[in-house]
Amino acid sequence: MTDESQPHHVTVDRYVERYAARARGMVASEIRALFAVASRPEIVSLAGGMPYVSALPLDAVGDIFDDLVGSRGAVAMQYGSAQGDPGLREQICEVMALEGVNGHADDVVVTVGSQQALDLIGRIFLDPGDVVLAEAPSYVGALGVFASYQADVVHVPMDDDGLQPDALRDAIARTAASGRTPKLLYTVPNFHNPAGVTLAASRRAEIVDIARSAGVLVLEDNPYGLLGFDQEPMRALRADDGDTVVYLGSFSKTFAPGLRVGWALAPRGVRDKLVLAAEAGILSHSVVCQLALSQYLANHPWRDQVKAFRELYRERRDAMLGTLSSVMPAACTWTHPTGGFYVWLTVPEGIDTKAMLPRAVGARVAYVPGSAFFADGADGARHMRLSYCYPEPDRIREGVRRLGAVLEEEVEVRDTFGTTGTPARGLDRPPPNL
Amino acid sequence: MTDESQPHHVTVDRYVERYAARARGMVASEIRALFAVASRPEIVSLAGGMPYVSALPLDAVGDIFDDLVGSRGAVAMQYGSAQGDPGLREQICEVMALEGVNGHADDVVVTVGSQQALDLIGRIFLDPGDVVLAEAPSYVGALGVFASYQADVVHVPMDDDGLQPDALRDAIARTAASGRTPKLLYTVPNFHNPAGVTLAASRRAEIVDIARSAGVLVLEDNPYGLLGFDQEPMRALRADDGDTVVYLGSFSKTFAPGLRVGWALAPRGVRDKLVLAAEAGILSHSVVCQLALSQYLANHPWRDQVKAFRELYRERRDAMLGTLSSVMPAACTWTHPTGGFYVWLTVPEGIDTKAMLPRAVGARVAYVPGSAFFADGADGARHMRLSYCYPEPDRIREGVRRLGAVLEEEVEVRDTFGTTGTPARGLDRPPPNL
Repeated sequence: MTDESQPHHVTVDRYVERYAARARGMVASEIRALFAVASRPEIVSLAGGMPYVSALPLDAVGDIFDDLVGSRGAVAMQYGSAQGDPGLREQICEVMALEGVNGHADDVVVTVGSQQALDLIGRIFLDPGDVVLAEAPSYVGALGVFASYQADVVHVPMDDDGLQPDALRDAIARTAASGRTPKLLYTVPNFHNPAGVTLAASRRAEIVDIARSAGVLVLEDNPYGLLGFDQEPMRALRADDGDTVVYLGSFSKTFAPGLRVGWALAPRGVRDKLVLAAEAGILSHSVVCQLALSQYLANHPWRDQVKAFRELYRERRDAMLGTLSSVMPAACTWTHPTGGFYVWLTVPEGIDTKAMLPRAVGARVAYVPGSAFFADGADGARHMRLSYCYPEPDRIREGVRRLGAVLEEEVEVRDTFGTTGTPARGLDRPPPNL
Repeated sequence: MTDESQPHHVTVDRYVERYAARARGMVASEIRALFAVASRPEIVSLAGGMPYVSALPLDAVGDIFDDLVGSRGAVAMQYGSAQGDPGLREQICEVMALEGVNGHADDVVVTVGSQQALDLIGRIFLDPGDVVLAEAPSYVGALGVFASYQADVVHVPMDDDGLQPDALRDAIARTAASGRTPKLLYTVPNFHNPAGVTLAASRRAEIVDIARSAGVLVLEDNPYGLLGFDQEPMRALRADDGDTVVYLGSFSKTFAPGLRVGWALAPRGVRDKLVLAAEAGILSHSVVCQLALSQYLANHPWRDQVKAFRELYRERRDAMLGTLSSVMPAACTWTHPTGGFYVWLTVPEGIDTKAMLPRAVGARVAYVPGSAFFADGADGARHMRLSYCYPEPDRIREGVRRLGAVLEEEVEVRDTFGTTGTPARGLDRPPPNL
């Protein structure tokens, strides 16, 4: 029998007064519910960052696991080292060599996706109130890490050639004027998430020089570097300075996220701390996942698979850019990515992408509002991230058409009433990968 | 050509001034090098906590992976939810039901081993200077987490029936007298690591009552609960209080560590924070590992496998206890575990187990010195942890005989010189699982 005098579905958290200071900001955003809706099949989601793993040779991957566990199961099913499998670390160095990085396997730490590498860097470097420089906009998962260590993010503007050196100098000078030194510069140089731009080759040495001179450690987060559509991989920032740059890599986009294998290549002292922090966090990564990946890299034409992904994503990018040109209202602009997964769309003045999201979902298309990619959530109202990685090209076209129609209506409402409504409140960080 | 004027192999960490406060204690212990030596085949390691995964049906496990990736690869190789696979969470509830826990899958968070669950609890609850109550001795991996969040551990004595209720009351009162309230009580109630004792059924309700009254959240860490040799699984602390107790479980000992699947069952508000913290830390656990485990639980007689492990570990425990009785010098005492992996040995006064370790390794046997299991490393000099989980019974007997001989010599040296030497310096936390 239910006591009708009691309120229903009220969750009282008796520990609410006891959480650590760093946990107080850990509150799910209001738009999470919308993203749950966005996973329904009738909705075209241009919101997620899921790679198209159906393009993998899944039967062959299954066989790798079978052989591995059958023949080396006593190792594969056991605990591993906190630093990661030595053979895989050698192979990771070969992958990085494609971007000019001459790293040593001893300096690689295998992580649970590059997300864990980001988290471990935060853990060993960031005290509350420390300053992290990050592009404007910046990867939502990195902003979540910096927030969880109570760091202050200072955004640095980008243009079509990526991070602006002068703006970086300014940001460092402004931080110094406030009596602080930035600890980290977080950057996604290639096919930026969410901005879709790439740091020009001509700026790379300058960016590293600025950071080095200021004593700022550069976090080069490079999950998409091998996924360029028009050219060979660019030379990594890490290639020319192994002391100033920590390189973060991942197999999530070049192979598959399901194994959760990423890595950090770090200066020796930093590496030592990363290993100890990784051990405190998880003891060790899955050995079976590491060894299956190692077998795949050793025995399958993985470079051809990356090439196949590039072709596939190029076609989807073309589908998105072509339809954007056809259907977007005047005064909309967008970036033209030459690789990776994302287009950054700027909508006309007076339209708020966060306020608009429920109407877009009603029209069966989803995106991530720009505010998600700024540390304080106050910026980005006129922007949104569109992903072309997961839906088939026809679905992308349909989704962009639906989005165009929603934007047309918003422009009409704005022209009639001068505003389009109030944005939902709350931190608007969606799950980084839907 | 080498410049002979330069010093060799000198690593200068230019970031040494820039680490976070929490990272300053992250320094590898001197005895790590010894444990690296201890993995040589001529040495009997009674130090590690590796389960004997060779006893698993490895071919069948390989087939599970093969079927899974071949037929559901597009899901298995993709990102998953930060909370973990819903089906696996249901199965986890069935496993916990064996210990009287009536949990809901919505309140389970799948983690990278229970180590990540420990870390996430630390992350959401512990500010620097917070007090954590933990048994004396306590699990080395938990102490590492508490240290990394700069918490102060207050150890609470145990006896052969586990944690002592009166000692727990005293510890809470002493903490209150110092103006603080403990945030957490960390306990391994069953087949304690490293002490090898089990919390008596008659004490369980009392322990939870004490914690509840004091507003202390109980962390019930229970990786070994199904590995009892003489009886059915005991009723979990969590079974009778879902608000006060967070239950941590793991498949590392009942199945295999290589998949890195553990979990937390937590009150709703705590669960919400755990999910957000897990997402910031790693985005999501490996889906392929979670689904392979789920298939194993669904389609294989996993309870029979646990029973096979129990028989195997019982035989090894008997080998260890029998040989200890035969060879240990007078005045040595040890616990008599009724399950799990560990015996806690107390050596005669005047002998320091950390100082003795290099001599034991020289005699081709390794153990973990007791000081590793105390937060400040100052206690535990007269203790060591012996594991019987991994070596075959004959190797265990040989290892214990070697250890007995080393201890006889130590006693002789002590009787002649009054001391046995100076212990190695530095934090002596070995890798939690060698």
